[in-house]
Amino acid sequence: MNSPDTIPLRKRCADALRVLAMDAVQAANSGHPGMPMGMADIAEALWRGHLRHDPADPRWPDRDRFVLSNGHGSMLLYALLHLTGHALPIDELKRFRQLHSSTPGHPEVDMTPGVETTTGPLGQGLANAVGMALAEKLLAAEFNRPGHAVIDHRTYVFLGDGCLMEGVSHEVASLAGTWRLAKLIAFYDDNGISIDGDVRGWFGDDTPQRFEAYGWTVLRDVDGHDAAALDAAIASAQASDRPVLVCCKTEIGHGAPNRAGSADVHGAPLGDAEIAATRAALGWPHAPFEIPSDVAAAWSAREAGAARRRDWQARFEAYAQAHPELARDLQRRLGNDGPDERAAAALAQACRDAEQRAAKVATRKASQDVLNIVGPAMPELLGGSADLTGSNLTDWKGHRPLTGSGTGNHVHYGVREFGMTAIMNGVALHGGFRPYGGTFLVFSDYARNAVRMSALMKLPVVHVYTHDSIGLGEDGPTHQPVEHASSLRLIPHLDVWRPADATETAVAWREALRRTERPSCLLLSRQALPHAGDGRERLAAIARGGYVLRQPAGEQVALLASGSEVGLALAAAALLAEQGIAARVVSMPCMDVFERQDAAWRASVVPRHLPRLAVEAGSTGLWWKFVGEDGDVVGLDRYGESAPAGPLAIHLGFTAEAVARRARRLLDADIAPVAGPAPAVAIAAH
Amino acid sequence: MNSPDTIPLRKRCADALRVLAMDAVQAANSGHPGMPMGMADIAEALWRGHLRHDPADPRWPDRDRFVLSNGHGSMLLYALLHLTGHALPIDELKRFRQLHSSTPGHPEVDMTPGVETTTGPLGQGLANAVGMALAEKLLAAEFNRPGHAVIDHRTYVFLGDGCLMEGVSHEVASLAGTWRLAKLIAFYDDNGISIDGDVRGWFGDDTPQRFEAYGWTVLRDVDGHDAAALDAAIASAQASDRPVLVCCKTEIGHGAPNRAGSADVHGAPLGDAEIAATRAALGWPHAPFEIPSDVAAAWSAREAGAARRRDWQARFEAYAQAHPELARDLQRRLGNDGPDERAAAALAQACRDAEQRAAKVATRKASQDVLNIVGPAMPELLGGSADLTGSNLTDWKGHRPLTGSGTGNHVHYGVREFGMTAIMNGVALHGGFRPYGGTFLVFSDYARNAVRMSALMKLPVVHVYTHDSIGLGEDGPTHQPVEHASSLRLIPHLDVWRPADATETAVAWREALRRTERPSCLLLSRQALPHAGDGRERLAAIARGGYVLRQPAGEQVALLASGSEVGLALAAAALLAEQGIAARVVSMPCMDVFERQDAAWRASVVPRHLPRLAVEAGSTGLWWKFVGEDGDVVGLDRYGESAPAGPLAIHLGFTAEAVARRARRLLDADIAPVAGPAPAVAIAAH
Repeated sequence: MNSPDTIPLRKRCADALRVLAMDAVQAANSGHPGMPMGMADIAEALWRGHLRHDPADPRWPDRDRFVLSNGHGSMLLYALLHLTGHALPIDELKRFRQLHSSTPGHPEVDMTPGVETTTGPLGQGLANAVGMALAEKLLAAEFNRPGHAVIDHRTYVFLGDGCLMEGVSHEVASLAGTWRLAKLIAFYDDNGISIDGDVRGWFGDDTPQRFEAYGWTVLRDVDGHDAAALDAAIASAQASDRPVLVCCKTEIGHGAPNRAGSADVHGAPLGDAEIAATRAALGWPHAPFEIPSDVAAAWSAREAGAARRRDWQARFEAYAQAHPELARDLQRRLGNDGPDERAAAALAQACRDAEQRAAKVATRKASQDVLNIVGPAMPELLGGSADLTGSNLTDWKGHRPLTGSGTGNHVHYGVREFGMTAIMNGVALHGGFRPYGGTFLVFSDYARNAVRMSALMKLPVVHVYTHDSIGLGEDGPTHQPVEHASSLRLIPHLDVWRPADATETAVAWREALRRTERPSCLLLSRQALPHAGDGRERLAAIARGGYVLRQPAGEQVALLASGSEVGLALAAAALLAEQGIAARVVSMPCMDVFERQDAAWRASVVPRHLPRLAVEAGSTGLWWKFVGEDGDVVGLDRYGESAPAGPLAIHLGFTAEAVARRARRLLDADIAPVAGPAPAVAIAAH
Repeated sequence: MNSPDTIPLRKRCADALRVLAMDAVQAANSGHPGMPMGMADIAEALWRGHLRHDPADPRWPDRDRFVLSNGHGSMLLYALLHLTGHALPIDELKRFRQLHSSTPGHPEVDMTPGVETTTGPLGQGLANAVGMALAEKLLAAEFNRPGHAVIDHRTYVFLGDGCLMEGVSHEVASLAGTWRLAKLIAFYDDNGISIDGDVRGWFGDDTPQRFEAYGWTVLRDVDGHDAAALDAAIASAQASDRPVLVCCKTEIGHGAPNRAGSADVHGAPLGDAEIAATRAALGWPHAPFEIPSDVAAAWSAREAGAARRRDWQARFEAYAQAHPELARDLQRRLGNDGPDERAAAALAQACRDAEQRAAKVATRKASQDVLNIVGPAMPELLGGSADLTGSNLTDWKGHRPLTGSGTGNHVHYGVREFGMTAIMNGVALHGGFRPYGGTFLVFSDYARNAVRMSALMKLPVVHVYTHDSIGLGEDGPTHQPVEHASSLRLIPHLDVWRPADATETAVAWREALRRTERPSCLLLSRQALPHAGDGRERLAAIARGGYVLRQPAGEQVALLASGSEVGLALAAAALLAEQGIAARVVSMPCMDVFERQDAAWRASVVPRHLPRLAVEAGSTGLWWKFVGEDGDVVGLDRYGESAPAGPLAIHLGFTAEAVARRARRLLDADIAPVAGPAPAVAIAAH
């Protein structure tokens, strides 16, 4: 065994990370020791020598951000947070991966002090980091003043082969290079191993060359186990005028004498024998979860962190003296408190405007109308589009495209839906902005896991999805979202709005921007939709997610619809009225919000005593909850077709006549529903 | 105006593509003229000089494949197919983008003779092409014999900036380079324009350098409007021992004097004035949809194509003489007829085996048991995993990893879920293989649009998704799919199986492999699941998607469940029996298949006369159709948590006691459901 006395302190600090990781994984009998043991020296160099943070105040606005994109190595982060002095006691490390511990299997942003983002789905951590670095650059450009660099921090990322194989790494590395995010520094854990083994069989990239192609500075062949080399690399990276990839040659599971360097050490406990052998090899005689006092003292960042934060606080106070309005606005922006008074007034104005105009308009255009009113009042809005700005209409009169120098409020993300969404998550995590971004609804598929992550992290991102359903017409089934509205509704903690007209669109924006604890999707039409109804009460009713739009006396049947089919339901109700049948029409712009209403409201909107027909140009599955098994759904459980929207709607049965016919059928006692669930929608499968 | 007499024939052939595209888009008043006009010269060079195809037999097995990855330029492909002599008359070009035409807005594989894959969602065409080239390489290695190169064709792709910005392009270009797919040749339409404008603002990549980093041969700065330069580039590309990216400098909308080179020409008709100006500038005096006879004759590939195919036919016959068994097997493999007798017997054997063993086993392990029996009998199976082979258990005793020389039946796709899935689509499109590939269910998100494309294209791909729901335990909410089963069920034309035990797993595999016209998903458990029931009848019943598993006399309530919750429902039913309550248990391994059963079967399984409780550790939304609004659902409309599976299941209410309690509540008249839809599942939101 090595004698602890002869081992340099820095090495022992790194070994403390290794041992904590292997012991916690062993205690949990589950987890990933290989990455923490492999990246321990890099973590030691970065966290002890360079990272500007304050364990006592992990939300301090000007702290450096640290992102563990290879999130399965969570124990590395927990060990770092514990050792540097965050509110993460050793008992929590002992409870790694246990129910209600603050050390979950992968890092989760609101579970552990000091965790900046939830990672695990590979590649997205890097994307979040790009978003954080973008937010820093934009905020610095907007708020710093000569002599007052109150926003001036770096974003550091750890990532592995998995992150680099994922496509999203391409999307966001390309943008980081184009945007010249010089304060972004990524450490590549180049250990040559992924779960299936030696990566050369499926990962032949010259990664340094690839990142040079993106315009990054690349530091090649850094020895990831050499503290001095790492210090030099970090210093060099900090001096770059571009984002930096530090390629660190490492050994996975470094320190485990028999399993290091193999895929075996990636994702399973080492076992008692190998743990003992590792202790011996490292010269680490201490019991599990015991840290010798000199190592503990060397790791503590409490004093240095407090000093850094105090220094920044003093600088911020000087800034506030010199630029009181800017300082107030910056503080407000960083507070994530939702719309202030001026913004709330603009949102109210946008709702009234839409209501008063009562125009027949595409809801994507109505959305732009809202932005034109709200944009000037909410400088924290950071818009964008995945190369469909003129189609999504996410721009507005005061929009300014992002420039290389880091100004602007509209981001051209290029054709990168996943990257855009994960970057927006990073922007929201950083704070100071309310990001929204657009693409076609069908391409929410490309971004889906990042949408999920925005919901899991409770980030107030607004996902703007235009060209809803078959109304987009000629582009055909590859571009016609039929399952997407419902599929997004299934994502927990996400509000999916499918507004029926300009008024509902304005309310949807208002509600989305009011939320500070969850993301929202706005599903908007390409085609013009008629004004659906009047009245001040409607503005409040829309905000409840579902409401009665038409309620004739002696109602016999109810038509439930959302979005573009609300107008259709109203037209069908008018037809039915001509035929002597009184039909209620319910608009359901947001099922998620409606389901959170009290039972009385829900019962008053969805009438159990009436036969019910739902109409939505999409999947029928989620509507049966509202129409019951004696009800019916006019929907689309098939793909669309390429054709102009008008003929296509007729072909697929979305006409007032067809809807009225289906409603009458519900009322016709002679055609009682068959036993069992009602048959699938009448339209034949594609 | 240029005089037609002085314009070289090749230029006029290219102009014919330009004019057909601009006129068809104008007639449709919708579409994308810019790309066809920009790539017309490249298309002329490739299709007239190099592409080996036969318009009279567009499915000829050894044809070259052509993929239009930038599918919005569909009119280029339709013009090519028409002019070369495919069964696509000019009238269909006049009906571009109209209902029931064979010229939809984006190319669709079964709509138009000669279209090899459905494109439009950017980047995936390239991925399909990689899959086609992989299939060619594997099939050639398996079937060719000295002197008998019966499989020997190339795959050509057109792609644009959008494809290259998408992350999936990174995933598949990396694999193509690693696999050295030398017969893959991609033409990059480097026109510097995407929908939002000049790409330099959001796409700063050095693309040639990036592809060199992948190990591709890159031909830089080829003039995309110079026929001779293009010929030379193609000849050079054909000689490479690696995949080739031909970087063609082009002008979007080339030929349109006022709009070429700008984003305006990308996706909107040129308008009458610009069309007239273009005719004048090109020296093209002919009326819309009129092709002069010399140009038509120069384009026709009917004679040359027939000769090529006859030549191959003769060579195939010689091969069949020399290697009759191989030839028979190759023909069978290319026929896509589903399991042959031997395979069907193996599938039946796998089902019987599982039934007889009646083991408590993880369904991912049961899946591997099936592969161990079926694998030897189905050499067309091409398995794989996105770097989770040992977790997905998609390998089997006879699996052979893919090697550089192009042999093997198991593909290590690396951490590339989207790429894997889109490549599998390409493999299936090529023919000769039945691809299946695995990842964790939660990461189906990353691949989602490619799963959709497999369904839209009716490709018999098997998507193997393991680590279903909260049963995966400690990895936590980022890895626990709760909405994914339902979300996949919403994709039209896709069968989603969530088997309850080994027997259901075997039947699911059998049904998935029997399908030749649709993809299937298999959602498999990490944890062991008990044997759910006996009997030969059960094998047939499982294949109907939903069936009665337990039917006591005097039944009072029905429990409906799928996958890991079927065992739970059986346990709850046993508890209820002790309490004097007779509960039916319904297993619903595949809602999609169940919904295709006749009404009598459906009614016999889902009993309208009984109170019904559904149990699934996932989204509740789709179950209301089966339980009705007086029913109830024990599910998860929230995220999971990081904890061992046992405590987590208790915490989230998935215990026999909790399910039995909810069932009793349904029977308790005192607690009648409130008016309106039943409240959301009792478990509080995350």
